[in-house]
Formats: sequence, structure tokens, C-alpha cells
Amino acid sequence: MRWTSDRDLFQLMQTKLFSAVIGDVLDVMGLQHQFLPPQIRPLDPAMRLVGRAMPVLEADFFDAVSPSGNSPLSTQQFGLMFHALDSLKENDVYLATGSSPRYALWGELMSTRAMKLGAAGAVVNGYSRDTDGVLGLDFPCFSFGSYAQDQGPRGKVVDFGVPVELGGVRVNPGDIVFGDRDGVVIVPKVAEQEAVRLALEKVEKESAVRVAIEAGMSTVEAFEKFGVM
Amino acid sequence: MRWTSDRDLFQLMQTKLFSAVIGDVLDVMGLQHQFLPPQIRPLDPAMRLVGRAMPVLEADFFDAVSPSGNSPLSTQQFGLMFHALDSLKENDVYLATGSSPRYALWGELMSTRAMKLGAAGAVVNGYSRDTDGVLGLDFPCFSFGSYAQDQGPRGKVVDFGVPVELGGVRVNPGDIVFGDRDGVVIVPKVAEQEAVRLALEKVEKESAVRVAIEAGMSTVEAFEKFGVM
Amino acid sequence: MRWTSDRDLFQLMQTKLFSAVIGDVLDVMGLQHQFLPPQIRPLDPAMRLVGRAMPVLEADFFDAVSPSGNSPLSTQQFGLMFHALDSLKENDVYLATGSSPRYALWGELMSTRAMKLGAAGAVVNGYSRDTDGVLGLDFPCFSFGSYAQDQGPRGKVVDFGVPVELGGVRVNPGDIVFGDRDGVVIVPKVAEQEAVRLALEKVEKESAVRVAIEAGMSTVEAFEKFGVM
Amino acid sequence: MRWTSDRDLFQLMQTKLFSAVIGDVLDVMGLQHQFLPPQIRPLDPAMRLVGRAMPVLEADFFDAVSPSGNSPLSTQQFGLMFHALDSLKENDVYLATGSSPRYALWGELMSTRAMKLGAAGAVVNGYSRDTDGVLGLDFPCFSFGSYAQDQGPRGKVVDFGVPVELGGVRVNPGDIVFGDRDGVVIVPKVAEQEAVRLALEKVEKESAVRVAIEAGMSTVEAFEKFGVM
Amino acid sequence: MRWTSDRDLFQLMQTKLFSAVIGDVLDVMGLQHQFLPPQIRPLDPAMRLVGRAMPVLEADFFDAVSPSGNSPLSTQQFGLMFHALDSLKENDVYLATGSSPRYALWGELMSTRAMKLGAAGAVVNGYSRDTDGVLGLDFPCFSFGSYAQDQGPRGKVVDFGVPVELGGVRVNPGDIVFGDRDGVVIVPKVAEQEAVRLALEKVEKESAVRVAIEAGMSTVEAFEKFGVM
Amino acid sequence: MRWTSDRDLFQLMQTKLFSAVIGDVLDVMGLQHQFLPPQIRPLDPAMRLVGRAMPVLEADFFDAVSPSGNSPLSTQQFGLMFHALDSLKENDVYLATGSSPRYALWGELMSTRAMKLGAAGAVVNGYSRDTDGVLGLDFPCFSFGSYAQDQGPRGKVVDFGVPVELGGVRVNPGDIVFGDRDGVVIVPKVAEQEAVRLALEKVEKESAVRVAIEAGMSTVEAFEKFGVM
Repeated sequence: MRWTSDRDLFQLMQTKLFSAVIGDVLDVMGLQHQFLPPQIRPLDPAMRLVGRAMPVLEADFFDAVSPSGNSPLSTQQFGLMFHALDSLKENDVYLATGSSPRYALWGELMSTRAMKLGAAGAVVNGYSRDTDGVLGLDFPCFSFGSYAQDQGPRGKVVDFGVPVELGGVRVNPGDIVFGDRDGVVIVPKVAEQEAVRLALEKVEKESAVRVAIEAGMSTVEAFEKFGVM
Repeated sequence: MRWTSDRDLFQLMQTKLFSAVIGDVLDVMGLQHQFLPPQIRPLDPAMRLVGRAMPVLEADFFDAVSPSGNSPLSTQQFGLMFHALDSLKENDVYLATGSSPRYALWGELMSTRAMKLGAAGAVVNGYSRDTDGVLGLDFPCFSFGSYAQDQGPRGKVVDFGVPVELGGVRVNPGDIVFGDRDGVVIVPKVAEQEAVRLALEKVEKESAVRVAIEAGMSTVEAFEKFGVM
Repeated sequence: MRWTSDRDLFQLMQTKLFSAVIGDVLDVMGLQHQFLPPQIRPLDPAMRLVGRAMPVLEADFFDAVSPSGNSPLSTQQFGLMFHALDSLKENDVYLATGSSPRYALWGELMSTRAMKLGAAGAVVNGYSRDTDGVLGLDFPCFSFGSYAQDQGPRGKVVDFGVPVELGGVRVNPGDIVFGDRDGVVIVPKVAEQEAVRLALEKVEKESAVRVAIEAGMSTVEAFEKFGVM
Repeated sequence: MRWTSDRDLFQLMQTKLFSAVIGDVLDVMGLQHQFLPPQIRPLDPAMRLVGRAMPVLEADFFDAVSPSGNSPLSTQQFGLMFHALDSLKENDVYLATGSSPRYALWGELMSTRAMKLGAAGAVVNGYSRDTDGVLGLDFPCFSFGSYAQDQGPRGKVVDFGVPVELGGVRVNPGDIVFGDRDGVVIVPKVAEQEAVRLALEKVEKESAVRVAIEAGMSTVEAFEKFGVM
Repeated sequence: MRWTSDRDLFQLMQTKLFSAVIGDVLDVMGLQHQFLPPQIRPLDPAMRLVGRAMPVLEADFFDAVSPSGNSPLSTQQFGLMFHALDSLKENDVYLATGSSPRYALWGELMSTRAMKLGAAGAVVNGYSRDTDGVLGLDFPCFSFGSYAQDQGPRGKVVDFGVPVELGGVRVNPGDIVFGDRDGVVIVPKVAEQEAVRLALEKVEKESAVRVAIEAGMSTVEAFEKFGVM
Repeated sequence: MRWTSDRDLFQLMQTKLFSAVIGDVLDVMGLQHQFLPPQIRPLDPAMRLVGRAMPVLEADFFDAVSPSGNSPLSTQQFGLMFHALDSLKENDVYLATGSSPRYALWGELMSTRAMKLGAAGAVVNGYSRDTDGVLGLDFPCFSFGSYAQDQGPRGKVVDFGVPVELGGVRVNPGDIVFGDRDGVVIVPKVAEQEAVRLALEKVEKESAVRVAIEAGMSTVEAFEKFGVM
């Protein structure tokens, strides 16, 4: 199988792969800290996401309207959130982290704008809101779940397009973000060719194991014979 | 829009509002600790709840059958739970807190009784049980989720109709409790007229923003133009 | 009602009982630490599980391929997992605990093998993966939810068929494991006859209470009259 | 060794035993859930405590001054705390649990009163305050540490002299409570004779092991020879 | 007693008051969320702190050296930390919050600078480092304890001199911060006159209660007679 | 400065370095996950530790005396603990992880044996016990603190001399373990020469900064001039 563009690659991943097999081959390649924490789940279990990370750095603020005069961000409500959002390009994934989980980092109007820009989805290390609206748009959103408390007087975006960490996982701008109901896995740019190739191979092997086990082979034998499980 | 009774007010809120917009306007009014913790969710995401708080104080006990003789509550299994339940009036919300999350604070028979009395729903800072039964009755129940461990030898109701706190949020008897799949927000009695008025306005503005963004306006522009997001 | 085999007993429990009523009667029998922690939930709320525990001890390992030479387990990838799985007998429940919740303890191929052996289900004190696959097989699986991170370089099975504890609940090989959407309850072997008998009785009483409450009886009266709630 | 009174027994335990050896022999006797959680520590690491449990049930309340009229406790600030305190007898240990850890459950004036009554110490499943005062009195106090937030508008004692659980450990009135810098262990009344006898024996054996190891014996050999470690 | 300057007021508070009595009278005044969380403790239990809050907003960053070009803060290592520190005035308390507890928010060189500027102390919602150095300077530092992981590639100061929240407690610039081994309590500016006056009174009453209890009065009687405990 | 043996290197590190400066230079070298979690603290704040990691893998077991016949470890009480202990060589650090924090992983007799073998100290991802005994030996022990609950029926050592992870930090056999009251930092073998060299340099620079700040230089200026803080 061949791919010459992100478009082809992402379509291939969407149709053939799933988070488990991608994580398995990254493990084999020695990349063992690539799954985001299990609290981050799709709003709808049928949602699948493939795209490139556009990391966003969110921070706790406690008052949107009392500028201190000390910070270049203090007069800017929501900080750089709208700039971050408007900067999204085709296949980008808005991936936000940095704040405490006290409020929603994603919602319906943000989804509307992101879809307009061709973004692939949103992954937030915290809650999302306007759940019915986001589901209605069928925009892939992965979060801790629904919580409508607003960002307004609680947080600001302080930077975007920068490397971040999320639950100990490094995410660089441009890394592939793959999500389905079993979790979100980050594929570093340098590893993506090899990872996808190995994952496609592993899918084949697993089918063979399944057939063998259905036919009555023990797992001890199957693991000896096929080397995967 | 006008309302002259709780009935009208609650119908208006049920049909026009949602937790996000109510929280947003409370924020603007300076009431920024009104959302209950995100662990408290509807048993069914389609459940919506509007009513007035009837707070119930639950406490951990460890033995229902060994009266100490020292406490007026020690011989009363379940404490004042049945009295609390039977005291519910039309549109009341049974809102329980105070115990550790080791057992269910709500169930099917309680729902049956509450519905008989015209109560609007239940919100518990802990688990609920008899999930199929409660869903069958379609009684709005917001909890940490399903867990059948019984209250019997683990807790008692020690008071009701008193102010409580739940995750740092003060709830007074008679405060409006509004819940949907994005969370449960408390509207203090004194703020309810203003909050509902502002929320209805904000719903309008958000529709305008949605139309503008769908038409291709950037979020930077939209926030400048409409002042909401 | 009578039962002379596990088959009859489990069918009776499947059709007549639920976790709440079983927990209630165990409480009365003085067995008050029998519910597994509430994080352990069915993958599908409609899943019901009855069987006998086959406890499996999982442990954190951090490298599958660097044998130390010091441990009999160090060269065995996955440890004794395949042996544990292949040892399952009819109506057994694979019940795993012991590791930190960093990876999946159950998945589709394991389900396929377990079904082949007539096992009743799986209960894991951690995550499961291949959620669509497991749901497709309709194999009762109770876990913290979906998370695809693999066990490979993260854990091994170090023993099975031994007593374990799970959230403070003792589980011995052969104890009955009963699960539904309200939780998983362990019925110790010595208590099972009495527990099932009392549970069947309590189901009857609760129906009477339900009828009375629907007819308008207060809960204070109902508890006085029927003694259950 | 012999003891014919609590006085003799407690003096023997104070001078010869420590929490580790008591826990070890309870393990051997099959009593494996007797240590209170590790957060409960002496205010001063040199504090040692032996006495009999007088369990106190604390509960969260949120307002000391708005009686609901619904509860017999609602008009009583601090609930039954003063009655519990004044009921202490010689060698009693005030052992409180049940509330959330938001405020202090013990302090200087309570220590003063308890000492007057001959109580042996206090163990609270939460914080204590007036730390300098309590240390000045040298009254054995085991808690989560220092935190001065007051009980006043946050909690009440709802019962005392009743069985409680604390971190999964059952404590009945009259059980022996033994505490030192390595933790607090509960010795059930029925097990106390045997436990103390075995603990005194184990102390001897451990001395022999220590001498052997100091002389260069390996731990593999030492465990084979002495059977303890 | 009279005070006409912060100097007099703080000296009075240092010599006569303690956190417990200040919290008690704030409770009576209806200010019931003024204690910072119990994890925040003095490095040395003998440390006492009185001063005015200079709140500092810290945020998680994950790379100090890859400027995104998108944020005015991205090229500034440590963000505004040095500006915040150099802005300290006499009796100020550097009070930092907002980041996750992964690194130290205070250390020896910061203490040295703060002392030079006459600052009263530091309170951080996280760890501090260079513990021997800070203790050597005897600079009042309240934190989660010692942890040397550096802020460098992990966080930045994004604003200072602004209102913040810390464990649900609002802290405005200029509020009094009072700390001792029993915790840190915030006295809002508008309440300080009344709070100090009432606290001085309560200290007197407590002495009377102590004397009475030492003389054998029961706590039931003492609370009836003196109304404080 | 030169070192030609571990002995010289460790003496140099003991006398000149501290955990903060070592962590700082590892950060600069791009090694940013080297500090163990902050819960791991020295039993006595004056304890300092330098040595090479001998990682030990501990696992939860729930019964020491009911061999399943299924595992090579099931009949071995404590598993391989005594073998791990007896394998310690000069300057080794016994570094244990893998179990849940329910019991002590280190104690006095283990310290006695380890000292006999010339080991440098112990670091456990859990509790230690026999605190007075360990302090009496002045054996450097870093743990969550004191808790006497025994390992006996709760855990076993399942491997040793293997790579482990502890709070996300990889520790390989032979890595340098450096601990003081500000934490424990792991220096990977390949980085040790460079890290020690840079740390010695940074200590010099920090002295210069200290002098400058004491002389009144602002931190803004100092950071510009010296480039460290």
C-alpha cells in the first residue's frame, strides 16, 4: 500500500486501522508513552479522528476583566483562544492542555468554526460543552465529557503551535493524532511511515489469530505460532 | 417574555434554556461557583431537570442495628430518609450530599414515591441504583452513575430542608436547580429573575454568532462584533 | 424454588435477580464488603453476568524483552496470561487484578478464546480494549472502560486460581460473581444457597412495596409495614 | 508474662511492643485489615498510644445556626460532640470518623478535657488543630496533620459509642487502639490475649534474626532458619 | 488595642493571634472559605507569616526554548517571574498558583531577593526547593513541601498583581495572609479591622475556658457558660 | 575536577552537589523526566544518598500460604525478596516499585543486611517501617513515610535487576540515584559524566548570583547577566 499525501494516508488510517494496533506497533518501535490518558474519550463512541496536532496551551486565570497592567495577556478575554482557533488548517486537530479541569475547553461554536476551516477534530485535556450541538455537527471531539462551566472568567489560551505534554505524552505540532473509542494515540512525525506500515501488517496477523482461535486453537499455541495477540 | 408562576417559569426554562447559557450569565452577574461537580450526570443524557432544591443531609453510619443510646438517630434505620422523601412537594428536587461515595443515595422506589408527590427530580452527590427502574419511570436523576451498594448499614439522613454545600457550591432550600447533559447549575433565589432574562437574551445572540460563523466569519471578528462566544 | 446444578442456579439468577437485591441480602447476612468498586462497569449496560470466579493476578512489568535471569517469569512475555486464559472452564469468570490502571487487561481475542471454553465473562480491575470487537461478540465484560494501551511491555500475569482482593473485597476461586449495570457483587461459596433464597424473597416484597407506593402509601408507612425499601 | 488488668496490659504493650509486630501477628491470626490508613500519623513521632476505642461519628453539616426543625440535631451546635467528649473514661481513645477532611476534629481544649478524664489519646480520620497546644500537653493525637479550619459551621457529632469503619477497618467500642510513628493498629477485643502473647514472642525472634544478620548471615538463610523477617 | 499602620497591625497579629482563632471569627462573620488547602504548610513548623497578598499567576508550559511566535510570552523564559519578584514591596507575600504540582515555585535565590525587598514571605500552591537554603535564611515559606524539579522548561509566570483563587479561596491583591503551623488563612481587606478585633476577644475567652476545663468543668457546661470552644 | 572510580565520583557528588542542581542540568541536556515523584522523601531530612540503582519489582499478592500450583512464585513467601536483598553490592540502591501502597517495602532488618553488603540506600515507591530502627542505623531510606503494615500476605518480589518505571521515570540497573531532602533524581549511565561536570559549573554560577542579589541586584538583571537562577 502506498500514500503520497496526508489525504491518502489519513483515509487509509481511517478505514484500516484502530488505536489498539497503532499503539501496539509503537510499543514494538520503542515508543511506549504515546497514549493520552484514558479520561479522554470521544463524545460519541462511534467518532474516529485522524489529523495533525495543533497544540494549544490553556492556563487558569481567575478574572477576565481586572487587567493588572503587568501582563500582555491581561486585557485579552479568553487570551489567544480565537487566534488559535482561526489559525486551524485542513486536517488539524485542536489539542488543548495546561489548565485545571474546572471548565469546558471546547463547544459548539468552536466546532462550527473549526469545521469551516477543515479541521479534523478537537482533543482537550479537560471537559467540553454544548454536547448536543457538537454531536449534531458530528465533529470528532475527545474530552473528559460534558461540563458546561464556561472558560470566560476561569482561563485563557496563553500560546499555541508549541510542543506540549499531556499526561506525560509529548505532542509536537504536526504529530499525527489518532482517536477512536479505545483512546487517543500520538504518532510522532518521524515514526509515522514505519508505524502505519507495521500496523497494517499487524491487522493481517490478528485476523489469522482470530480464525485459529475460533477454530479451537489454544492461546498458548496461537502466541507461539503467530507471535502476536 | 413573562412568567407569573413557577409552572410558567420552569416550562420556559425547559423549552428555551440549557445549563451552559445559564452558567454563562451567572458568571457575568458575578456568581461564579454555581455548577455542581462534573461527576454528577444524568442517568440518561436526554434527561432535563428544573425545580427547586430540597436539600438533604446524608451521613456515614456503619451499623443500622446497634443503637448506642447516645443519639436520637441511632435507633432509626435510614435516619430521616423516609421523612425527607415524604416531605417533597411539587417541583421539588431531592438534593442529597454529605456522605462518602460508598453506596447508592437514590433508587427506583424513591423515584416512584417522588413522582407521586410531583417532585421534579433527584440530584445526589454520590451513586444511584435500580438504574433500569429509574430509567423506566423517566424520572430525572443526576448522580455519579449506577452502584447498587445499599444505604442500609452505611448511612442515614440526618437532616433535610437545610442549606448544604456540594463541591463548594452553596445550595439553599428553594434555589432553582437546572440540569441537563452538560451539568447541573444552581440559580440562587434572589438571582433567578435576572438570570433567566439574561439567559434568554444570550440564546438570541449566540444564534446570530452561529449564523455569522457558518457564513465564514472568523471567531476574532465574531467576538469583536457580538461580544459573546 | 430448587436448583441442583450451577446451570439451574445461574439461569435462575439471570432471570430473577439483580445486583441490588443480592447485595441487600448479603448485608443482612452480615457480609457487607461484597460489591466491587463502582469504576468496574459493563461495556454495554445491558450486559448481565453470572459465573464462578477464576481470579488472575496481574503485575506491573516494564520491559518484556530484557530477561534479568533472576525471575522464572522474566523470559515469559505476558507471564502466565495465556495459561490462565486456556485454563478457563464452563461458567468461569476471568477476574483480574493487581496491576496499576495503565493498560488493557482484556480484549477481543481473549473474549473469543474464553467463549470457546464456555466462560461466563470477564471482570478486570482496570481497562479493556477492542471494545467494538468485544461488543460484537456480546461477551460480558466489566472494566473501567475502553483503553487500548497494550499489556505487552507493561504487565504480566504472575499467578491464577488464587484468592485475591479487589477494592477491599476478597474473591476466592469458585465464588459466584454476579454483574449487571448497577455493579458487580461477589457471593462467597458458603453463602450462596442462603443468599439466593433470601434474594428471591426480597424481590417479592419489593414488588408489594412498589404497588403500595404507586397507590399512594407514604414511604414512612411502607417501611413500617413491609420492612424493606 | 501475665497481666490481670488493662493497666498492666497497656503498660506491657507500651514498653515492649510496637505497631509493626502487632500487625504482623494479627496477619498470622488471619486478621489482615487492622491498620488504619497511613495518612493518620502522630503529631509528634515520639508519641505512643495504647487504649480502648470510644468511636465517635462525625458528619458534615453546613450551617450551625439555621435549624430546619426536621432533625433532633439541628439546633445543637457541634451536635453531640461535648457529650461524646465528657463521656470519656480512663484509657479511652476518642476515635472520630465520618466527615470529609475539611476541618479539624481535635484541638487543645478537647485534649485538656480528655486528659482530665484520664483518656489515653485521640485518633481522628481528618485533621487536628492547636498543634502547639496539643504538643505542649503531650497528649497522644493521631491525625492527618495540622489544619485549623473549625468544625463549627462544617460538622457535628451525630453519634458515639457505636461501631464505625475507618478506611475499611472495623472499630468496635472497647477494641484496643495501638499507635506509634509507624501507624495505628486496631486489636479486636476477642483477639487481644493471643495477639499480645504472639507479639511478645515475635519480638524475641526478631532480635535473634538481627544478631544473625549483623553477624553476616544472608536473609535467605535467616528466613529459612528463623521463619520471621 | 489600637493600630494605625500595617507595621503595628502585623506586629500585633504576630504576637497575639494564630490561624485558628482568625478562622473562627471569620466563620462567625460569615466568611467561611478563607483557609487555603491543608497541603500548604510551613517549611518549618515554627514559621509564622503575616503580610499582604501579591498574587502571582503561574501556568504550565512545556518548552522554554521553542518560541511559537504566537504568544507575547513565548520567548520569555520563566515568563514574568522575575518582574513579579522584583515588584515585591515591604510586607508583601508572594502568593503563586495556577500550575500543576510538577515543579518548584519557590527557592533560595527567590527568598534572598524577596528578603532584600522587605517581603513577608511566600505561599505557593505547589512545591518549593532549596529547602536548606530557605531554612537558613529563615524566610517564611509555605508550600506542599520540598521538590527540586525546576520551573525552567515546565512553567511560566503569566500575570501578577491580579485576583486569583487557590483551592476555592479568593485572594485579592492586598488581602492579609496569615500563616502558622495550623494553616494559612486569608483575611479580605474589608474584613480585617473587625476580624482582628474579634480574634483578640476570642483569645481572651478561650483562656477562660481553658482555666475552667483544667479546673474540672465539663465541656457541656463550658460551652453553655462561655459560648466558645 | 577528576574522578576515576565510583568511589571518587560519589564522594564528589555527596560533598558538592544537591538534587536541584543535578535536575537543572539534566533539563538543559534534554532529560526532563528524571525526578521521582515528590511523595518519595527521606526518613530524615538530613539523609543524602548517592549510588547505583538495583531495581526491584514488587507485585500485589493476597495470600502467602495458598499455593495455586500455577505459578513458580506461588510457594515462595515474599517471592524473590531475600534473593534481591542478598544480591546487593557496594554502592547499590535497592529501588522497589510495582505494588499498590498498602504496606511497607523496607524496614530495619533489610537495612541491617543492606548495610552489611555496603549498599548505599533504599528508595521505595511506597511506605517503609521500623522507622526508629532505620533512623538508628542512619541508613538512607527514601519512601512515602512510615507505615508498618507488613508485606507478608500482601506482596512479593517478582523480579530484580530489571528496568522499571517509577512515576513515569525510567530507571535502568546501574543508573545513578541521587537523593536529598529536595527529592530523588535519576542520572542515566550515559549522561553521568556530562551531568556532573555541568552541575559543578552551575553550583559556581549560582554562588555568583547569590552574591549579586545579596548586594541588591534585581532578578531581572541577574538573570540577564548570569543566565541562571
